[in-house]
Amino acid sequence: MTYTPATQDQLLAIRVNAGIEELARSEKFAAAEPDMVEAIVEGVGQFAAGEFAPLNRVGDLEGAKLENGVVRLPEGYAEAYAEYVEQGWNAIASPEEFGGQGLPFTLACNVLENLGTANMAFNLLPMLSVGAIEALEHHGAEELQQKYLPDLVSGKWSGTMNLTEPQAGSDVGALRATATPITEGEHAGKFLIKGQKIYITWGEHELVENIIHLVLARLPDAPEGSRGISLFVVPKYHVKPDGSLGARNDVRCVSIEHKLGINASPTCVMSYGDNDECIGELVGAENRGLAAMFTMMNNARINVGNQGVQISERATQQALDYAKERVQSARAGSADKSPVSIIEHPDVRRMLLRMKALTEGSRALLYYTAGQVDRGVLGDEAAKARGEVLTPLIKAWGTDIGIEVASLGIQVHGGMGFVEETGAAQHWRDSRIAPIYEGTNGIQAADLVTRKLGLDNGEALIGLTEEIARDAADEPALFALAGDCAAIAKWMREDASLDDRLAGSVPFCTMLSVATAGWQLLRQLRAVESGEAPGLAKTKTASVCFFLDRIVPEASGLKASATGGAETLYELDTASLLG
Amino acid sequence: MTYTPATQDQLLAIRVNAGIEELARSEKFAAAEPDMVEAIVEGVGQFAAGEFAPLNRVGDLEGAKLENGVVRLPEGYAEAYAEYVEQGWNAIASPEEFGGQGLPFTLACNVLENLGTANMAFNLLPMLSVGAIEALEHHGAEELQQKYLPDLVSGKWSGTMNLTEPQAGSDVGALRATATPITEGEHAGKFLIKGQKIYITWGEHELVENIIHLVLARLPDAPEGSRGISLFVVPKYHVKPDGSLGARNDVRCVSIEHKLGINASPTCVMSYGDNDECIGELVGAENRGLAAMFTMMNNARINVGNQGVQISERATQQALDYAKERVQSARAGSADKSPVSIIEHPDVRRMLLRMKALTEGSRALLYYTAGQVDRGVLGDEAAKARGEVLTPLIKAWGTDIGIEVASLGIQVHGGMGFVEETGAAQHWRDSRIAPIYEGTNGIQAADLVTRKLGLDNGEALIGLTEEIARDAADEPALFALAGDCAAIAKWMREDASLDDRLAGSVPFCTMLSVATAGWQLLRQLRAVESGEAPGLAKTKTASVCFFLDRIVPEASGLKASATGGAETLYELDTASLLG
Repeated sequence: MTYTPATQDQLLAIRVNAGIEELARSEKFAAAEPDMVEAIVEGVGQFAAGEFAPLNRVGDLEGAKLENGVVRLPEGYAEAYAEYVEQGWNAIASPEEFGGQGLPFTLACNVLENLGTANMAFNLLPMLSVGAIEALEHHGAEELQQKYLPDLVSGKWSGTMNLTEPQAGSDVGALRATATPITEGEHAGKFLIKGQKIYITWGEHELVENIIHLVLARLPDAPEGSRGISLFVVPKYHVKPDGSLGARNDVRCVSIEHKLGINASPTCVMSYGDNDECIGELVGAENRGLAAMFTMMNNARINVGNQGVQISERATQQALDYAKERVQSARAGSADKSPVSIIEHPDVRRMLLRMKALTEGSRALLYYTAGQVDRGVLGDEAAKARGEVLTPLIKAWGTDIGIEVASLGIQVHGGMGFVEETGAAQHWRDSRIAPIYEGTNGIQAADLVTRKLGLDNGEALIGLTEEIARDAADEPALFALAGDCAAIAKWMREDASLDDRLAGSVPFCTMLSVATAGWQLLRQLRAVESGEAPGLAKTKTASVCFFLDRIVPEASGLKASATGGAETLYELDTASLLG
Repeated sequence: MTYTPATQDQLLAIRVNAGIEELARSEKFAAAEPDMVEAIVEGVGQFAAGEFAPLNRVGDLEGAKLENGVVRLPEGYAEAYAEYVEQGWNAIASPEEFGGQGLPFTLACNVLENLGTANMAFNLLPMLSVGAIEALEHHGAEELQQKYLPDLVSGKWSGTMNLTEPQAGSDVGALRATATPITEGEHAGKFLIKGQKIYITWGEHELVENIIHLVLARLPDAPEGSRGISLFVVPKYHVKPDGSLGARNDVRCVSIEHKLGINASPTCVMSYGDNDECIGELVGAENRGLAAMFTMMNNARINVGNQGVQISERATQQALDYAKERVQSARAGSADKSPVSIIEHPDVRRMLLRMKALTEGSRALLYYTAGQVDRGVLGDEAAKARGEVLTPLIKAWGTDIGIEVASLGIQVHGGMGFVEETGAAQHWRDSRIAPIYEGTNGIQAADLVTRKLGLDNGEALIGLTEEIARDAADEPALFALAGDCAAIAKWMREDASLDDRLAGSVPFCTMLSVATAGWQLLRQLRAVESGEAPGLAKTKTASVCFFLDRIVPEASGLKASATGGAETLYELDTASLLG
């Protein structure tokens, strides 16, 4: 279960798909020059392999435990996190005025990719902090930023996002937590927060001195639904004017979930204001909390898509190692009857190459998306729109293939894969959350066929398919898939009802994701063919050809599902469907 | 987590796909008349729901535990098993001369389907006993049959299959356990068995009075590889001539595996002959053990494919229940802004209908296969060959869709699906073993493109595709898929190398499975349209149309993978693949 950072392939994707050199030509990202990029990618890879990876198994076995209101992590987690903060990895993409390095999102993605490949559950701690940082950075008042951002940026404190309540999951607008203005006393101008939140990732733990909760709640007389939600910052410990920590706030972890995977990540039920003394401060405007949440949710979705890449990389490495070591049966049809490593058997090679092709394809899509987000920050509106189209793709498809690749990893292991000691099963269990949280993949696909489909009057999405088709003139399967996607998008825009679009949303999302990933892999292949990353030349050809020749045609098979419409889904009334 | 037996759909499949009425016209299966069939399907469904299902969750939570050499099951398992034996469910398809009912395999499949849908891990106990019964029935000497079969058939004793050793998994021929003839003393004529076996399902437990192990081992001077393997029967307790139990044999459970799922099923490492006193008796001819194993392995593979149907049914029921109860968000685009049950949302309906269509499709394929096996037993050689072609299909595809449907079940639950308390995650974990054991799905696909492809000079497989195409003249997608399958089979027979065939084996296996399942669903639909099972009329139309219109075209998308050949898989040498 050793783990080797995929440094070379990451650098290739950062150069070719994110276009880091072009980004570094801007004033804002001038620091992202080649030496710096290499130093980060290599450095965080080594850190992740050395400090986070060895804790992955024990984190699964022992998990986070709640004891008398305190969440305990297995031995080693506190030390590794302290080292992570010490080395400055938390601050990569945060604003320089708060101690960050102001580097592109692309490089922050790489930090998360390496940490999460090493230990997906642990990596959720820095990943959630990013959300809190972005919320405060974009919507917090100057005073709140000064109070919270420096220690969040360094990683000395961590952050959480509190949206979900039992009755309010995908429908955030249904939440009921309340915020009551405080009109007098030392907390005048602040709010009393009250309510219960569930599924709060790393909601409580002792790895940091303070936890900064971003909480959605309703002000008195707020409009119903999503237009009546405001965002509040609620620290675990009050922060005094001099920056030192004061008394404990009235917020506590009631329980943690017993989950299928990511056991080292405490998933908390958080109770705010049990004693009516939970103090929070408003972030942004009243009743505009959901918009503030969405600002940062876009990048969070990319970060979850990144988790698909991570688990795929880890599972692929483990399967390759096993397939090399495990000797079983002679090659079929061979005169030599000696048993060989199973990596030599055709179907095992097929599985391994598929794992590799999907991993590299999702990575190419990830960094392509990140690069577009960075261009959007630099003011490129077309890139911004492109990034918005790509976000549901990397979130949904990236996490779907995370499960597929982890499952293939089990299969390569045979019976050993079903035995927990091997570790292959953990990857598969861990992978299963990613299609669910940060907006289910169904929600992503709905976003694609509604908001994203209409972006720039439809040009943002259609432009993507046209660009793929143009570059894929010599690749018949990819060209055909891009054409299929364009035709479906046209049908959805012009002829399909909303229900029809939603009924075909998930298969369409997969098709467009595969087309885009295939396209970005093709760009990698061409770069490699012109001398980029010579160390990858052989493997890249094999994995890209596998992707274009086998995986791309499969996606075209989804066309009937994407265009089948909603009518057949509703022919059956609910009572009949229930049998 | 209640479970309702799918009695109506099972009866439909037993009538239409297995053709039970035709079977009952034979002398051998005359007892399988409609009343009897209904009584069995309804009876075992109720028994399974009442006795096995309530133990499913506790079996997962507490699991089987090894304490001082004794395997303990959670409370209730012993009583439920005793009731199972008492009601006579174990004896359905076994020979009447040993106390069985001599009914068709089709009905034994139904007993297993119901028990396994209720509790997959528990059902492995009777399922493995069937293997031991079949081995003794077909290969054991009269004396062995008299000694062991009556109590195995009733279920008073259970049986196990011992093939795997650490270095001998898919390559059974690599096994090293030994059998030494005893030439004198009370055991003269018998054998001393010595060796360690792994992955022995229900290898040790206290639910029965005796466990009858069927063990593969090598005689002295046996030829190397698979031609030097013999089959032995090794009881946990010796059986005295009067049928009463004697001393404990020298066989013990050394440890049990910590697994991803099926936790109530003890997966044992078994040690034979630690004290050189393990006595076994030869079953069948010397060095013919593998052939004997394969006799019964065919049906065992169908029984594992059955597990895919089981887990799909259970996961689908649970997802439907949840989707009906869970209220979240208004219908998109609706003027009415009240939240609705999520079953009303298009993408949730898509998932649910997909689950239903795959479950019913795999069930149709299961009973079609079972019916062919039963015809083979009656002497119909064409049906026997057809059954042999179908066996890898139901095993591989049935178990693949078990995982897919269980995964969709989690997705329908959203965040609740990742929390173990819900139970959706257990189905997914349980499902993951089925593509691995009883020959991995890769082994099934290899069997399809080698032995089964050549059966009857290729006619067995081609005949299947022709029959599908003939019946599907009015179903363009299914007709096209059958044509694709025929073309691939022709290419594999005439132009492809062995490596090419193996490289395309898994995608081809999926394509042919989907084509066959779609065809059998079409037969169900036509039967329903002509008045069969009126209670299913509405739902059957919906699920069959979903399968034919959406799932069938997806399978056609696998054509490029099936015919891509092996060359690209080997362009990369092993060292490069490992990076």
